[in-house]
Amino acid sequence: MPDPGTALRSTSVPQLLAEIADVGTDPVRGGYSRPVYGAAESDLREWFTEHAGRRGLDVETDRNGIIWAWWNPRRLPLQNAVVTGSHLDSVPGGGAFDGPLGVASALAAVDRLTASGIRPTRPLAVAVFPEEEGSRFGIACLGSRLLTGTLDPARAARLTDADGTTFAEAVSRHGLDADHLGRDEEALRRIGLFVELHVEQGRGLVDLDQPVAVASSVLAHGRWRLSVFGEGNHAGATSMSDRRDPMVAAAAVIGAARDVARSRPGARATVGRLVPVPGGTNVIASRVDLWLDARHPDDVATAALVAAIGERATAVAAEEGCTVTLTEESLSPAVRFDVPLRDRLTGVLPTAPLLATGAGHDAGVLATEVPTAMLFVRNPTGVSHSPAEHVEDADTDLGAEALARVLHDLLGPGGERLTGQGPADG
Amino acid sequence: MPDPGTALRSTSVPQLLAEIADVGTDPVRGGYSRPVYGAAESDLREWFTEHAGRRGLDVETDRNGIIWAWWNPRRLPLQNAVVTGSHLDSVPGGGAFDGPLGVASALAAVDRLTASGIRPTRPLAVAVFPEEEGSRFGIACLGSRLLTGTLDPARAARLTDADGTTFAEAVSRHGLDADHLGRDEEALRRIGLFVELHVEQGRGLVDLDQPVAVASSVLAHGRWRLSVFGEGNHAGATSMSDRRDPMVAAAAVIGAARDVARSRPGARATVGRLVPVPGGTNVIASRVDLWLDARHPDDVATAALVAAIGERATAVAAEEGCTVTLTEESLSPAVRFDVPLRDRLTGVLPTAPLLATGAGHDAGVLATEVPTAMLFVRNPTGVSHSPAEHVEDADTDLGAEALARVLHDLLGPGGERLTGQGPADG
Repeated sequence: MPDPGTALRSTSVPQLLAEIADVGTDPVRGGYSRPVYGAAESDLREWFTEHAGRRGLDVETDRNGIIWAWWNPRRLPLQNAVVTGSHLDSVPGGGAFDGPLGVASALAAVDRLTASGIRPTRPLAVAVFPEEEGSRFGIACLGSRLLTGTLDPARAARLTDADGTTFAEAVSRHGLDADHLGRDEEALRRIGLFVELHVEQGRGLVDLDQPVAVASSVLAHGRWRLSVFGEGNHAGATSMSDRRDPMVAAAAVIGAARDVARSRPGARATVGRLVPVPGGTNVIASRVDLWLDARHPDDVATAALVAAIGERATAVAAEEGCTVTLTEESLSPAVRFDVPLRDRLTGVLPTAPLLATGAGHDAGVLATEVPTAMLFVRNPTGVSHSPAEHVEDADTDLGAEALARVLHDLLGPGGERLTGQGPADG
Repeated sequence: MPDPGTALRSTSVPQLLAEIADVGTDPVRGGYSRPVYGAAESDLREWFTEHAGRRGLDVETDRNGIIWAWWNPRRLPLQNAVVTGSHLDSVPGGGAFDGPLGVASALAAVDRLTASGIRPTRPLAVAVFPEEEGSRFGIACLGSRLLTGTLDPARAARLTDADGTTFAEAVSRHGLDADHLGRDEEALRRIGLFVELHVEQGRGLVDLDQPVAVASSVLAHGRWRLSVFGEGNHAGATSMSDRRDPMVAAAAVIGAARDVARSRPGARATVGRLVPVPGGTNVIASRVDLWLDARHPDDVATAALVAAIGERATAVAAEEGCTVTLTEESLSPAVRFDVPLRDRLTGVLPTAPLLATGAGHDAGVLATEVPTAMLFVRNPTGVSHSPAEHVEDADTDLGAEALARVLHDLLGPGGERLTGQGPADG
């Protein structure tokens, strides 16, 4: 095992990411496709385990497939720990940073902490969560949802991927027992707080000209199905004035959703999926189904946003002689990250702005159990879930430095648990 | 065999259609699904053959699967015949009249001719064309295209249906030889002219308050693929102002296509098929493909219509930071039905208006070989290719009466070939 000091000096975040630059590249979509428990993600888990070992960390995989690498030089009891980390799986054709940046930055931060000579008053763990993207089994943050019990383990076991493999089969092949998935009180008791570093999935830091931000909240978000009903007919034989075309109405609905969201600060509305019925080229559709993804920092404002879009959709569809139904398919309330922990981070990083995030994260799921916080690192393209996602080398090092400073603050004297939330206090 | 006079008095068009009202009903889509050479369409072919036999017509099926039922009481040579008829196959979930109305009206017209005591100076045939809709093997007017040689018979033989059955296999099971498909000079020589009666696929007659129209032309029609390119991104993490969303641009393109078509008399533009890429609910699409069906009575105006839509599409997409490509996938020029024959029909039916049709028909395919004409019968819903398609009983009888009068005129003295077109003259 190499000397930890050597590891520190030899592995910057760009170097760590360069080591995995060839793992799971997607020749068709570009970027990376690293579905959980696939060959690429498994290679990345091994890569992480090897790096943790090099740094003298004790590595274990819990019964939900979460990897824990413990840095505990004073052999303190494994409780009230400072936990950082992220995930190594990706969306299909995703970028190089969503997930791995948080894991690599955690390793680099451990190097800095080791080099600093700190004698931590509480243990530190670097955690790697499986299936954060939900791109293989369809449910995002699957690992943290199992850990916290917010997802029924029997339901999780039955989830299937595109090839029909169940999640139970996938975890079994990975040496786990599908009968032992689910809420893990012991693992939760060990976590004092969780800080996740992540590439920013937007242009907030670019606009503010800052490399690192502290997260304020996760937007409330959900999806709604809108069905637009018109009159199916022959595309050639029906004059323009005799039509009740639900595709024309759906187009107006898409425009209306965008206009409503634009008029409300902080609101986001997206239609990324649309299915005309019957869908023939020479047929005026009889119905168009489209899915609305709507988000806002505030739960009440999210409901008002969707209601306003529904109202406008009904009005613009009526102008085409069409009707609309609106059905909620899922809704996640807003998550406000723990305020005392957030304030502690901004105390350590006084120039870092506060930013809300529209994306879900394991830190958002864990927030119901323990104080959680997030750091975002500048993404010059602002693009995410795409090969165009990017972080400059210098910013990756600034991110790791910020994370190390936060962890140092939390681990040292005064690094006690910050709030009364969570099962360890209950 | 019943006495022809009895057949005449006992079978009106509504009675004929009532006999087949239970054949090929579609419990899922509603209406009828009668794909060519399927059980339902085969039953209808038998039903037609039986009715032709009852009327003393000589029935034969040619090598392309077209049924010919000859009324030739004076045993004249089979040439320069007056041909009428239509098809018995349907689109999935189609109406009761598209096809069968023309066949039933032809039988009812023969009854009227028989009762009139006319001694025809040329033979009459009632023809039933297979796969007019193209709903099983994907190419509309397949029978007439094979007859005229405008479709390569080897290509036709290789066409497959949704179950993987080839057209060659389907015709073999029906007693035909797939090696003998293709242009049939002998069959073409027998046709002097062709008159097809069809349910109107629009509201032209409703608006004019008339039961029957004479066709003027088939609109030029084609399909074009528009690809709208934007920037794929995270639906939650991307603020509304940072988007280049091709779905919003595609929505504007759909609206623009409708507006352009509305502003040009006679033009029709439809988007019935649209595919966002990647198509995830929580993903801003990177590209949207949509298909434009555009039609106009005039070939030049059709090209101008599509060019104008392409220009507007480029402009409205640019407002969203998106780009557009436009690719022609197919184009059929306008068909003007034979003018002397058309004038002869309007002479017989002086109150019948002239109407263009946006739909393709076997009469349009045959128009390159022989003089052809069409009669349309009022459809109070204006809807076609749908269970909502309808014809009132009284109008079916008015249609059959109009067809009988036209055929009587064409068969009697002066019923000679009207123009110099076609292979029989060449």
